[in-house]
Amino acid sequence: MIHFDTDYMEGAHPEIMRRLVETNLDQTTGYGTDPYTAKAKELIRKACGKPDAAVYFLVGGTQTNATVIDALLDKFEGVLAAETAHINVHEAGAIEASGHKVLTLPQHDGKVNKDDVEKYITDFYRDDTYEHMVAPGMLYISHPTEFGTLYTLEELKGLKAVCQKAGIPLYMDGARLGYGLATDSTNVTLKDIAEICDVFYIGGTKVGALFGEAVVAADPNTLPHFFPIVKQHGALLAKGRLLGVQFEALFTNNMYLEIGRHAVRLAMKLKKTFLEKGYKIHIDSPTNQQFVCMPNTVIDRLSKYASFELWGPRGETETVVRFVTDWATSEKDVDKLIGLL
Amino acid sequence: MIHFDTDYMEGAHPEIMRRLVETNLDQTTGYGTDPYTAKAKELIRKACGKPDAAVYFLVGGTQTNATVIDALLDKFEGVLAAETAHINVHEAGAIEASGHKVLTLPQHDGKVNKDDVEKYITDFYRDDTYEHMVAPGMLYISHPTEFGTLYTLEELKGLKAVCQKAGIPLYMDGARLGYGLATDSTNVTLKDIAEICDVFYIGGTKVGALFGEAVVAADPNTLPHFFPIVKQHGALLAKGRLLGVQFEALFTNNMYLEIGRHAVRLAMKLKKTFLEKGYKIHIDSPTNQQFVCMPNTVIDRLSKYASFELWGPRGETETVVRFVTDWATSEKDVDKLIGLL
Amino acid sequence: MIHFDTDYMEGAHPEIMRRLVETNLDQTTGYGTDPYTAKAKELIRKACGKPDAAVYFLVGGTQTNATVIDALLDKFEGVLAAETAHINVHEAGAIEASGHKVLTLPQHDGKVNKDDVEKYITDFYRDDTYEHMVAPGMLYISHPTEFGTLYTLEELKGLKAVCQKAGIPLYMDGARLGYGLATDSTNVTLKDIAEICDVFYIGGTKVGALFGEAVVAADPNTLPHFFPIVKQHGALLAKGRLLGVQFEALFTNNMYLEIGRHAVRLAMKLKKTFLEKGYKIHIDSPTNQQFVCMPNTVIDRLSKYASFELWGPRGETETVVRFVTDWATSEKDVDKLIGLL
Amino acid sequence: MIHFDTDYMEGAHPEIMRRLVETNLDQTTGYGTDPYTAKAKELIRKACGKPDAAVYFLVGGTQTNATVIDALLDKFEGVLAAETAHINVHEAGAIEASGHKVLTLPQHDGKVNKDDVEKYITDFYRDDTYEHMVAPGMLYISHPTEFGTLYTLEELKGLKAVCQKAGIPLYMDGARLGYGLATDSTNVTLKDIAEICDVFYIGGTKVGALFGEAVVAADPNTLPHFFPIVKQHGALLAKGRLLGVQFEALFTNNMYLEIGRHAVRLAMKLKKTFLEKGYKIHIDSPTNQQFVCMPNTVIDRLSKYASFELWGPRGETETVVRFVTDWATSEKDVDKLIGLL
Repeated sequence: MIHFDTDYMEGAHPEIMRRLVETNLDQTTGYGTDPYTAKAKELIRKACGKPDAAVYFLVGGTQTNATVIDALLDKFEGVLAAETAHINVHEAGAIEASGHKVLTLPQHDGKVNKDDVEKYITDFYRDDTYEHMVAPGMLYISHPTEFGTLYTLEELKGLKAVCQKAGIPLYMDGARLGYGLATDSTNVTLKDIAEICDVFYIGGTKVGALFGEAVVAADPNTLPHFFPIVKQHGALLAKGRLLGVQFEALFTNNMYLEIGRHAVRLAMKLKKTFLEKGYKIHIDSPTNQQFVCMPNTVIDRLSKYASFELWGPRGETETVVRFVTDWATSEKDVDKLIGLL
Repeated sequence: MIHFDTDYMEGAHPEIMRRLVETNLDQTTGYGTDPYTAKAKELIRKACGKPDAAVYFLVGGTQTNATVIDALLDKFEGVLAAETAHINVHEAGAIEASGHKVLTLPQHDGKVNKDDVEKYITDFYRDDTYEHMVAPGMLYISHPTEFGTLYTLEELKGLKAVCQKAGIPLYMDGARLGYGLATDSTNVTLKDIAEICDVFYIGGTKVGALFGEAVVAADPNTLPHFFPIVKQHGALLAKGRLLGVQFEALFTNNMYLEIGRHAVRLAMKLKKTFLEKGYKIHIDSPTNQQFVCMPNTVIDRLSKYASFELWGPRGETETVVRFVTDWATSEKDVDKLIGLL
Repeated sequence: MIHFDTDYMEGAHPEIMRRLVETNLDQTTGYGTDPYTAKAKELIRKACGKPDAAVYFLVGGTQTNATVIDALLDKFEGVLAAETAHINVHEAGAIEASGHKVLTLPQHDGKVNKDDVEKYITDFYRDDTYEHMVAPGMLYISHPTEFGTLYTLEELKGLKAVCQKAGIPLYMDGARLGYGLATDSTNVTLKDIAEICDVFYIGGTKVGALFGEAVVAADPNTLPHFFPIVKQHGALLAKGRLLGVQFEALFTNNMYLEIGRHAVRLAMKLKKTFLEKGYKIHIDSPTNQQFVCMPNTVIDRLSKYASFELWGPRGETETVVRFVTDWATSEKDVDKLIGLL
Repeated sequence: MIHFDTDYMEGAHPEIMRRLVETNLDQTTGYGTDPYTAKAKELIRKACGKPDAAVYFLVGGTQTNATVIDALLDKFEGVLAAETAHINVHEAGAIEASGHKVLTLPQHDGKVNKDDVEKYITDFYRDDTYEHMVAPGMLYISHPTEFGTLYTLEELKGLKAVCQKAGIPLYMDGARLGYGLATDSTNVTLKDIAEICDVFYIGGTKVGALFGEAVVAADPNTLPHFFPIVKQHGALLAKGRLLGVQFEALFTNNMYLEIGRHAVRLAMKLKKTFLEKGYKIHIDSPTNQQFVCMPNTVIDRLSKYASFELWGPRGETETVVRFVTDWATSEKDVDKLIGLL
C-alpha cells in the first residue's frame, strides 16, 4: 500500500528528529524563552528580510488562525475570506467561538480577487445600515490555497493595496507555504510575503515538522499583547523550545525550501502522468496537492494499492480525488502509482 | 412630509398606551412574575391552541434571536439560515458573539427551500471530515421574510419534515408576524405556526407595541434553563409587567390581527397603484413591506414630500425602494402618496 | 398589603407617562436618531457639566454593564470589582459570556478601597508570570453600592488616581444613582462623577423610568464603535426615542433629583424608626435601601401586612431584611409600616 | 548551574524519544485515528481498570482544562474551584473566554473541602435569586494541587458524594498526576481516580512526555461530541499519533509510575535536608514540588549556582521559594544542591 492522503502522515524530517534527540536533555526555561527559539526567530527574520519582525510559534493551523484572527480583530469586526477558506469550512467554528463572523467572498480556484474584496468593502460602507452589520476588519487568504493554487505577486500586491486603502490588515495562512515557495511557476518569494502581508504564518506541521507554525509580523507592533492571547486560546506550548528546535532546523541549510522542492517535483511528475493518461485535471495546481477527476472504476481499482482522498461526495460515474506529496514521499512510491495508472 | 420608512416610527397602539397608564401605579414583583404577564401568556397559549406552551417575553428582535439560538444550539453547532436572513446580515454579529456560526443557504425571495436544507444536511453527514465542520443544529426562518414574503403551509410542513428527519428544531423569527397572518393570500394561521415550529416569536415592536417579542414553544421543555440564559444575554427586563401589559392588550379583542389587517390593506392599495403606474415590482410581497424599482428622477421628486428607504445602494438610473405601512399609517397619507405617484 | 421589596415595582413617574402618551403618535426614525434623544443627551451633558460628553441610552442594567465592560476591555483583560459587585453575583455570568473575567477585590460595606486596588495591580505586575494571568483592564464600582452605601468624593478621587496611574478606566454603575445624589450626607455631585469617572451610567429603571440607563463618557472617544457593540449585545432599542423621551423628562424640572430626595427622605424616616425601636442596622446606608436585622418572629408577623426581601438565607432566630423606597413610595405606606413596627 | 525551576525544562524521557524516532517514517492517518493512539488508549483503559472508558489526547494543560470544562458545562453554568486553582489564576482567562465563570471556593493547602462545596451549592439553591446567578455546574480539583498537596481517598470520595448529590460532574486536573501516584504517603491509586472522577486527565507534559495530556472518562457518554469541541478549541493535533506513541511508551513497563517515583524520591531527599537545616516548610507537600521559606540572603547566595522560582513576590527578609524535581533530575544535582544548603 502506498499513501497519498495528506501531507501529515509521517513524523518529522529526520534532521529535525536528530536535533530533537540531540537537544533532548538540555534544560531550558519554558514558553519560548529558550535559546533555540531565539535562534529560530533570528533565522526566520533573516529569511524574511525583516530584521525587526515579531515571530511567534504556535502548535497547529486552526489554533494559529483562531488566535491571530482574534488578536487582529476588534470585537465588532469580522474576517473576509473565500467561501472555501479553511477558516470558513474546516475549523469547526473556531473563529465564531471567539466571537467573530467569517464574511465570505466568492472563490476563484480557492482564491479571492481584489475586485470582490474592494466591492465588499465599498458596498458595506455605502449601506446606510452598516453599523448594524459586521464590519470587515481584516482579509484572510491562504497560499497555497485549499486547492493548491497560488497567488501571483501582482495579485498579492493588488489585495494589499485594497486592504491598505480600507485600513485593514492582510493575513496569509501559510499552512503549506513551503510547497508554494518551491514551485518554478511562482514569482512570489518569502521576502515578498513578509513585505506584503501584515501577518502570515509559515507552516511547519505539513512541511516537515512534527508540528508547529511560525507567525510572522514584519511590524512588531501588529500583534500587541499576543502572549496572553495565545495563552488564553490554550495555544501556548510549555516546552516552547520544541518549536524553536524544529524551526531552527527548518531554516538551516535551506531545509524548508528543499522539502518543498522535493514534494512539488514529485507532484508535477504525477500531474504529467494524469495529463498524459487523459485524466481531467479538476484544478490546475502547481503545488503538492493534485486534484483529478477519475472514473469510479479506476478509483476502485487503484484503492486496492494506494490510498488517497475523495474530494467531496462520490459521483455517479466519476469523482474528484486528491493526491498529496510531501517531504517524505518517495520517488519509488510515485513511480509505483504511475505504474498503476 | 409623510413617512413610509419602517414599521417602528411611532410609539404604541393607543389602547396599549391606555393600559400602560391605567396599570402604571400598580405594584408588582419584577422579571415577569406579575399577573399581567401571567394573563398575557395565557392569552397567547389560547391563541396558539397550545395550552401547555412555554411563553417568554423579551425586549427586541436581535436580542430574541441571539438568546433563543444560543439556547437551542449545542456548542459545536451552527444555525442554518437564508443568506439574506436578518441574523446573517443585520444583527452586527450577535449570533457569532455567542459562539455560533450562521450556515447560509440560498435565498428564494428571502425564503429557504426544503431541498436546499435537506441537501445541506445530507452532504454534511456524507462528508468524511464533518467532525471538523460546524454541524447544522437548527433551522432559522423568518415569516414574513426580510422581503415581506411568506411561506405557504405546505412549505412550512416541508421544512418541518426535513428538520424532524435531521433531529433539529425549526425556529421562526416572527418580528413582523402580525402582518404575515393578516394577508388574504396566506393559508398559514398562528395555530399552524405553533404546531409546526419548535420555537417562534410573535413580534410586538413592529406590530403595535412600544417594544417586546413573545417567544413561544409548544413543548414547554424545548428551552430548559431559559431564564438564566435570558439574564446572561442582558435580555431580562426588570419591570417585566410592561411586556405582560402590552401583550395582554395585543391579544385582547383581536388587536394583533386588526393591526396586521389595517397595514396590509394599505400596503395592497399602494401596490395596486405601483402596478397601475407601471412601476416594476422588485419582489412580490403580500405584506406590509413593498419593494418597487423606480427611476431615480421619480425617487428624487418623491423624496421632497415622502420618506422611504433605498433598498441597497442607489443605481445609475433606477433604484429599488421600500415603502412600509404599519398600524399607525393613515389612509390619508397613503392617498397622498398615491397622489404624488 | 404595603410593598418595600424593590425600587422597580411600579411603572414610571406619571410625568414620564404623560410625555410618552403625548409624543406617542409622532413619527421618528429609529435607534436613537430622533430629536427626543438628541434633547435628552443635551440635558444630560448640561447636568454633567460636560458639553462634549458622549451619551448613549440602553435598556437595562445588566445589559449596560455587559456592553460597556466588553467595549472597554481588551480581549486579554478582566474587570476589577468588589466581590459583592452586581456584575460578580447577580448578572448570570453576562460578563464572562462576553469573554471577560471578573477580578474580585475585598468589599467594605459594598465598596472597594483604593489600597486594595493598588495592591492588586502592583502585585499583578510584580508577578513574573503575569502574562499567564488576566490583566486588570478597568475598575468597576457601583454608587450607591449593592448595600446602599456611598463613596465620598475623596474616595472617588483616590480610586481615580490609582486607575490613572495604572492607565485603566474607572467605570461607575449608577443603577440607583438618583438615590445616591439625593442624600444630605453625600459630598458627591453628578458633575463630580462626570469629572472623575471615565464612563458611568445614570440609572433610569430604578429611578422613575419604565426602563433605561444613560451611559456617559465625558471624553467622547472613550467608547469607539459603541453603536455596533450595543447592537451585537442585543441592546439596541428599535424605538430609541422611548429612552429619549424618558430621560428628557427625568432631566427636566429637576425630576431626577426630586425622585431621589423623596425616596431617601422616606428611607431615613424608616431608618430612624428602626434605630428607635432598637433594631440592629446591618449596614449603615444613607440611601433608599435599608438593611436591618430582625427577629424571625417580627419578620413573620410583619410579612402579613408588608412585603420586603430577606437578605440572604433565613437565620436560626434572626435574619437581615431589606426595605426599599422609591419615587412611588407613599408617606402613608411608610407610616403604616412604622405603625406595624 | 543546576535547575529546579519546573518539571518541564527538558524534552522527553529517552525511551519516548526512541519510540518517536523508531516510528517516525511510518505513515498513518491523522487526528488520532492511527494504531499507536488506539494502543495507548487500550493501555490507559487497562491501567484505569475501565475497559469502556473514553480516552482523548490533547496537547497541553490549559487547553485541556478549557476544552473539557467547556464540554461539561451548560451555557448558564460555571465551574467550582479553589481560589488558587490553575484555571482561576494561571490560564489567562481561558475558561471565561469560552463563556464560563470560575466560582471560587476557599483553599486549604490548595485543596477544596467537601463542606465548602456542599455549603456553596446549598446556599446557591436556597437563594431566591439563584436564577440571576451562575449555577455551579461542575467541580474542578487538581491532584496534586498547585502546591503539591494530595487529596486522600476519603476526601475524594467525600467530594464525589457531594457532587453526585448535586448532580454535577467531578473533574480532576492531573497535570502532575504521576508525581501524585508515586508517593508512599498516598492511598489513592489511578484506579480509584478513574472510579471516582467523572473526567480526569493524566498529565504527560510535566511527567516525561514532550507534551500531551490524556483525558479519561470512565463512562464513555460523559463527553458527547467531544471531537468537534476539541477542534473548535484549536486543540486537535494533526499528527495525533505523536500523542499515541508517547502515551503508549508512558504506559508500557510502568514508565509513568517510575518517572513519578524517581522525582518524588529526590524531592523527599531535598525536603529532609530543608527540615534538617531548619528551614521553614511553607506547605507540607509529599510530591515533586517543595515549597520552603528562606532568608533572602540564602536565596541570593544559592541563586549563583542553582535556579528555582520565587513563590510570589520577594519578602522583606525572607521569601517562599519552590524547588521542583522531575524524571530528568539527577541525584548528582540534588546532592549538589544539598551541599550548597
